[in-house]
Amino acid sequence: MILFNSDYLEGAHPKIMERLLETNMEQTPGYGEDDHCREAAAAIRRLCHTPEADVHFLVGGTQTNATVLSAILRPYQGVISADTGHIAVHETGAIEAGGHKVIALPAANGKLDAGQVSECCRLHFSDESHEHMVMPAAVYISNPTEVGTLYSREELIAMRAVCDRWRLSLYLDGARLGYGLASPENTLDLPFLAHVCDAFYIGGTKQGLLFGEALVISSDALKPNFRYMIKQQGGMLAKGRLLGVQFEEVFKDGLYFKLSEHAIQLAMRLKQAMTELGIPFLYDSPTNQQFPILPDAVLNMLRYKYSYATIQRVDSKHTAVRFCTSWATKEKQVDSLIADLRALY
Amino acid sequence: MILFNSDYLEGAHPKIMERLLETNMEQTPGYGEDDHCREAAAAIRRLCHTPEADVHFLVGGTQTNATVLSAILRPYQGVISADTGHIAVHETGAIEAGGHKVIALPAANGKLDAGQVSECCRLHFSDESHEHMVMPAAVYISNPTEVGTLYSREELIAMRAVCDRWRLSLYLDGARLGYGLASPENTLDLPFLAHVCDAFYIGGTKQGLLFGEALVISSDALKPNFRYMIKQQGGMLAKGRLLGVQFEEVFKDGLYFKLSEHAIQLAMRLKQAMTELGIPFLYDSPTNQQFPILPDAVLNMLRYKYSYATIQRVDSKHTAVRFCTSWATKEKQVDSLIADLRALY
Amino acid sequence: MILFNSDYLEGAHPKIMERLLETNMEQTPGYGEDDHCREAAAAIRRLCHTPEADVHFLVGGTQTNATVLSAILRPYQGVISADTGHIAVHETGAIEAGGHKVIALPAANGKLDAGQVSECCRLHFSDESHEHMVMPAAVYISNPTEVGTLYSREELIAMRAVCDRWRLSLYLDGARLGYGLASPENTLDLPFLAHVCDAFYIGGTKQGLLFGEALVISSDALKPNFRYMIKQQGGMLAKGRLLGVQFEEVFKDGLYFKLSEHAIQLAMRLKQAMTELGIPFLYDSPTNQQFPILPDAVLNMLRYKYSYATIQRVDSKHTAVRFCTSWATKEKQVDSLIADLRALY
Amino acid sequence: MILFNSDYLEGAHPKIMERLLETNMEQTPGYGEDDHCREAAAAIRRLCHTPEADVHFLVGGTQTNATVLSAILRPYQGVISADTGHIAVHETGAIEAGGHKVIALPAANGKLDAGQVSECCRLHFSDESHEHMVMPAAVYISNPTEVGTLYSREELIAMRAVCDRWRLSLYLDGARLGYGLASPENTLDLPFLAHVCDAFYIGGTKQGLLFGEALVISSDALKPNFRYMIKQQGGMLAKGRLLGVQFEEVFKDGLYFKLSEHAIQLAMRLKQAMTELGIPFLYDSPTNQQFPILPDAVLNMLRYKYSYATIQRVDSKHTAVRFCTSWATKEKQVDSLIADLRALY
Repeated sequence: MILFNSDYLEGAHPKIMERLLETNMEQTPGYGEDDHCREAAAAIRRLCHTPEADVHFLVGGTQTNATVLSAILRPYQGVISADTGHIAVHETGAIEAGGHKVIALPAANGKLDAGQVSECCRLHFSDESHEHMVMPAAVYISNPTEVGTLYSREELIAMRAVCDRWRLSLYLDGARLGYGLASPENTLDLPFLAHVCDAFYIGGTKQGLLFGEALVISSDALKPNFRYMIKQQGGMLAKGRLLGVQFEEVFKDGLYFKLSEHAIQLAMRLKQAMTELGIPFLYDSPTNQQFPILPDAVLNMLRYKYSYATIQRVDSKHTAVRFCTSWATKEKQVDSLIADLRALY
Repeated sequence: MILFNSDYLEGAHPKIMERLLETNMEQTPGYGEDDHCREAAAAIRRLCHTPEADVHFLVGGTQTNATVLSAILRPYQGVISADTGHIAVHETGAIEAGGHKVIALPAANGKLDAGQVSECCRLHFSDESHEHMVMPAAVYISNPTEVGTLYSREELIAMRAVCDRWRLSLYLDGARLGYGLASPENTLDLPFLAHVCDAFYIGGTKQGLLFGEALVISSDALKPNFRYMIKQQGGMLAKGRLLGVQFEEVFKDGLYFKLSEHAIQLAMRLKQAMTELGIPFLYDSPTNQQFPILPDAVLNMLRYKYSYATIQRVDSKHTAVRFCTSWATKEKQVDSLIADLRALY
Repeated sequence: MILFNSDYLEGAHPKIMERLLETNMEQTPGYGEDDHCREAAAAIRRLCHTPEADVHFLVGGTQTNATVLSAILRPYQGVISADTGHIAVHETGAIEAGGHKVIALPAANGKLDAGQVSECCRLHFSDESHEHMVMPAAVYISNPTEVGTLYSREELIAMRAVCDRWRLSLYLDGARLGYGLASPENTLDLPFLAHVCDAFYIGGTKQGLLFGEALVISSDALKPNFRYMIKQQGGMLAKGRLLGVQFEEVFKDGLYFKLSEHAIQLAMRLKQAMTELGIPFLYDSPTNQQFPILPDAVLNMLRYKYSYATIQRVDSKHTAVRFCTSWATKEKQVDSLIADLRALY
Repeated sequence: MILFNSDYLEGAHPKIMERLLETNMEQTPGYGEDDHCREAAAAIRRLCHTPEADVHFLVGGTQTNATVLSAILRPYQGVISADTGHIAVHETGAIEAGGHKVIALPAANGKLDAGQVSECCRLHFSDESHEHMVMPAAVYISNPTEVGTLYSREELIAMRAVCDRWRLSLYLDGARLGYGLASPENTLDLPFLAHVCDAFYIGGTKQGLLFGEALVISSDALKPNFRYMIKQQGGMLAKGRLLGVQFEEVFKDGLYFKLSEHAIQLAMRLKQAMTELGIPFLYDSPTNQQFPILPDAVLNMLRYKYSYATIQRVDSKHTAVRFCTSWATKEKQVDSLIADLRALY
């Protein structure tokens, strides 16, 4: 059985496991105040060209999103998100549990458009009784999005302008950021993200670490007392150095980027093969998640050898599914799938 | 200037003011534990044919909605609402501030359909990873809705069945309930509402009281410790008897219903006149809120003599507006508006 | 039966009822945006000598406290209160429901001491792992306190200095403020309070209004978007003019102060008589709440004619009780109680 | 430098690291639905003699406490805790952030007494206006407590009876449970805890795992939908099998208990040596945390070779400090400290 369900099926890249072993019996202070965390944060600041940024390490994405947005928003404020956004759909209402409305806007291809964000704000503030409604105060985007698509540099510049116009914080969820940066269609880089966003996180869990997300805070307003927020949200790992060691390792010699490139190469190989077979896609994704629409007859053959996620029924005979590659996917696994697809078409 | 902006422009009906004066120097225990509250609650139970129901009096609607839904929902649960629902739009995120997502479904004419509620639940519970999403656990409806429309008896029976099927509580916001019950198209009554809903409230603020909403709880599961919830939410009025006295008075001899009928008669007179003039409506409302679409040229004449609420631009030359009648609207005010409209068409 | 249980047994002072009647059929915008609210706010600003202060009218005290503290505090911050403070004991956890810890300090006579507040902050910020603990960020005091005692001008100046030193907001709950200002031991006035506090409220409910508290915000940091907070907390009264009309009336010709003086005169008469009879007090209160410790035998006689609140058993034969006077208490009621006490001693 | 600061200075026991390596490239479903989690849960159920218990694995203690208590408590309810309890002091108000008051009772030696819990409830429910106060609905205890002390079997039976009497849930924080069970003074065992508590957790972070706490839920009322709670609180680890693998390993052959015994042996050796030297203790702890009161002169010598936590100044010349042993402490480290202490006394 070859699993393409998700990009977090395995543990961590062997080099990371090795470093965890090597450092295992070191005695360090807890809660992220050790040298590994310090060094990992310094490495990230260097990569982002932001000597002033604050870097924090948290265990998982839902936790990171909830912590950042709780820190940004006042009680009467909400966060604008694509209606497909992770916080809008797949975090069991963690943002609402923190007291805030997720203002979900319809999103083509999982992306918010600067224009629709601006219009949402314009409508809010031009309403005479706007205090009867939740005030938009932040924008949540993910890159790649939940459906694999990417923001361009121009789109983010336009979004930043809208955020400045309406005093919104811009927060980017980078659970799969490496896969985005490694995409042939990518126009972003870390220094740009650190510049354009108030905060963003560099995902580890789906990118070859055991777990962990590195949060980069550029906005001075968001920096003070952030560790209180992390602790309150249950996100301050006692042995915080586990996060430090892992991020130190992946950013020491560019391992993070190499792993991402590997996954993207395989995803693009799969995408091209499917395209050549005339297979349509639910979303046109240039990243490691591919969403082909396959005949049920084909899926009935594939399912004995491959696993994947089912996304939605498209019509009475076709289903959209998701195949993920990752840092751990093997070339021969993708080639096997391609060969079987070719045989079935 | 004749004001049709809303149905809470004046104070209270003179009979209510009179009773407040008469009872003003009585000494009573606070927090709703006085004889007036007891008698008003008894009167409402009699009208609802529910000797077992709990009746509580709260000051306003947002407070009542937040208190009831906080009492119903567990932290991971949300409430289904029409996307036009008051809790979804006009309560500054009070439900989210209590930790809960408002699951907004698109609503034709402000109404939720039993089928779409059922489908929303089916989708949730059939998803393998449903624990990553907010669990629907209550349905919020309003009658009349925010756009003046009404649920029928059949629609509510169907909704109840869906609620039973998916273990949802059914809560009805009756801010303008009297106006609904007095409508020529009404098929509901208080005993039916007490039977079909887990809880509902009989609005006072918009129905001739100074303020106050009477909450009727039929569900045994919702009754225990409800007064703790009211107190925590800041809804326990120190001089609770003010609420008791007012509801006692309006339900003593049917004043509540007479006032509602008055408003509806005038609204229907206005609607008919507009219809005869060929004026289209944004919503087809059989209650005290009328949403005609008027030429801007006409509105430019009307605005010097009448005030109304602007709802939305319909096209480059037309605007949908709202005229409200109420217990306090005078016949001659409506006749004046009709005469002026006729002159302009 | 003569009731001394509380200071909110009756409705409102007749002059207030009269004004409510006179203005009853006026048509005004809702939600506190009418001329009565504007004029009442202006009057309060004049009395406070603070042309820049924001004034808001809310229905009740728990609501006001929860709204102000939610607006002041960030998620990881808490409010310091006397352990007898209303927010610490008698609001069903409304502050915690908003997400914040009430940091309760032991309080002699219901009062916080500047020194203990300072020490609490010093301990917090000097702890190496202070981010594992709730950060103190506001001080809640009440004047008169829940046990009738008063802060002096010097005490509040010292508290302000501590607040400035540790960046705490100072908030004063004035549910019975008038009774405090009318006390023979009072050293405060409204301009001083507006100067020394970030926010405070002038109580109406216990001071002769039907309901209502007038919140005065001096701190510029607390002003923006405060109406959103009020609406979210369910505290924005639809017919807000009811609050405006009442506060307009009591502050027009000093009625507020006259009513308070009346209550204090009677309380002092009672206190002096009790003192002369050698009756000890649980708290030495110079305001309208008196806490005598009476023999159970005496209470067994009194209870057929007077009602009062039972506070605590003091020993096997004595109980501390509370007698309240108010704007509505009659001279002869107090004289009757004094006469009966004298007869029993 | 020899570190005795805490019991989470190192990574994990080598056997655990080995298993994580061995299983690293396994492909498993996420979120705790893998075979390792299943097997670890089964092992814990066997050790607890509770085939019906639910077992969940969470990353850390604050998260576990917040999740359990949010699931137990209704909005108006609070949890009783010793004033030294972790939730009362060291979780940055995570319980309050979830909306609930921590009702802190003064605790001798870090322990709650059944009598004081009962009295707290009696006072609450006998108050006429109890709905104005937070309702006690759960008891939080830790074993060992934050100061190293233990509950006896009799004490927990008495506490259970009080909980049954007042309808309180009993929740035990076992962050250091193994060290407690290994103490010479221990009278508890896992089956007893599973029987007497509604829920408790078996700590991993401080007991030789990289991280992780195993929550055991005995109460049927608490079981439904608990995974929603975990997800919402950000506690559902994507690669949940990391938790499963670790707990599987420590409970396979009793490693958990052996590691705990090791720490306790060393702690008792240290305690006995200190006692023989006449050193007094701030708390009389039979577990792995020792709280000697040492002359500052002695500490000034020790601090160049050993690190420890400073607890409090006892007088002008003495300070109470904390030395922790753990699964990772070496015999020779403790012997070195003992030898140095003997030389200094």
